[in-house]
Amino acid sequence: MNSQPHDHIVKSYDEERSRLTNEILRMGEMAAAQLESALDVVERRDDKAAERIIANDDAIDALEHEVSQDVMKLALRGPMARDLREILAALRIAADIERVGDYAANVAKRSTALNLAPPLPYTRGLTVLGELAVRQMREVLVAFRDSDPVAAQRVRAQDAEIDTVYTGLFRELLTYMMEDPRAITPCTHLLFMAKNIERIGDHATNIAENVWFLVKGDEPLPPRDKRDFTNTVT
Amino acid sequence: MNSQPHDHIVKSYDEERSRLTNEILRMGEMAAAQLESALDVVERRDDKAAERIIANDDAIDALEHEVSQDVMKLALRGPMARDLREILAALRIAADIERVGDYAANVAKRSTALNLAPPLPYTRGLTVLGELAVRQMREVLVAFRDSDPVAAQRVRAQDAEIDTVYTGLFRELLTYMMEDPRAITPCTHLLFMAKNIERIGDHATNIAENVWFLVKGDEPLPPRDKRDFTNTVT
Repeated sequence: MNSQPHDHIVKSYDEERSRLTNEILRMGEMAAAQLESALDVVERRDDKAAERIIANDDAIDALEHEVSQDVMKLALRGPMARDLREILAALRIAADIERVGDYAANVAKRSTALNLAPPLPYTRGLTVLGELAVRQMREVLVAFRDSDPVAAQRVRAQDAEIDTVYTGLFRELLTYMMEDPRAITPCTHLLFMAKNIERIGDHATNIAENVWFLVKGDEPLPPRDKRDFTNTVT
Repeated sequence: MNSQPHDHIVKSYDEERSRLTNEILRMGEMAAAQLESALDVVERRDDKAAERIIANDDAIDALEHEVSQDVMKLALRGPMARDLREILAALRIAADIERVGDYAANVAKRSTALNLAPPLPYTRGLTVLGELAVRQMREVLVAFRDSDPVAAQRVRAQDAEIDTVYTGLFRELLTYMMEDPRAITPCTHLLFMAKNIERIGDHATNIAENVWFLVKGDEPLPPRDKRDFTNTVT
């Protein structure tokens, strides 16, 4: 053993830090996969698979708990300013991923309600929207893994596309409801499912902003578009 | 000056901690007041007031930023385990309050869309639901101020009432939509507003759980009812 006590502490801090990063990446990939499965379940009308997705959400919650524990351990070492930023960003990113998992589980839950009605012709728009959100999640996780603020900024800019598709789907669903009162209940579920996915996009954006903060501190991000106009649809 | 250097550091840590608590209480009261104003705006159909509420949300966001900064300062002092729990709880509570503020602003935003249609007879249910959420927020802030896990546990148990009222309102709004296609767009806004308020209840519950965690650490909370069945309404 040639290592000095100081070296030992430093190395072990780095080890715990990379453990934390891996936990977050694992958590994020689980949430993205949950959303992918939930979209698939909507298309295939598969209640059994929906139940599995709902049950899987506990594993994501458990990982968030682990991240918090690991963050506490790191903070107890009396970190420096840059480390502290990493710790703070890790907590926030884990919380965002946890919400993404909740939304994915909620999409699965509502799909079982949809399956009690005859098949709807209008679930395709939801899949398109969901695939955009899955892509956003995967890309922001890569940006986090690589501590890449430019990639993070790109993900953030793409959120406008999700908002545009969401707004279109929202209007489309309203017209189906107006044409046929029997469509009201299933389309209401689809509206909420679409909203869940739009929110996943917002959480991917939050994660992107935390990757930026992680690397750049309080240096302001460039301004960006917001294109969700459904709050004021008339 | 009789104080020892050690006393000085300890006192100043306490001062920063109580500064943090006060910021969170201020932030929480702002969010509760925003929700109250938003409900009022729906009843009075007052677009100007709605715009003020939307603009006020920035102040809550700014306070969350301040809380994060203060938390970083405290963490840099190399806190002990109990302090760290307070720090972690403070971050999470501030994030929950920030979301409550967003939801309140969203209720205000959607109210301006409602005001473009003729007055609706069904906004009363929303007010009832909203008042429950305002009460939950105020009560959980008191529990936080007093570090009172029993009061926190009471708030958490009351969330089932919000879920019940929300589920009733959800079903009621669906029937209006089925009776009259012209009600579909405004009722969709009301559905989302109701969902926002139900989510505020969930955030009050999260805050309650963090007050518990603050005092009791990882000691498990008693189980509780969940009564939001709208995910599976058919």
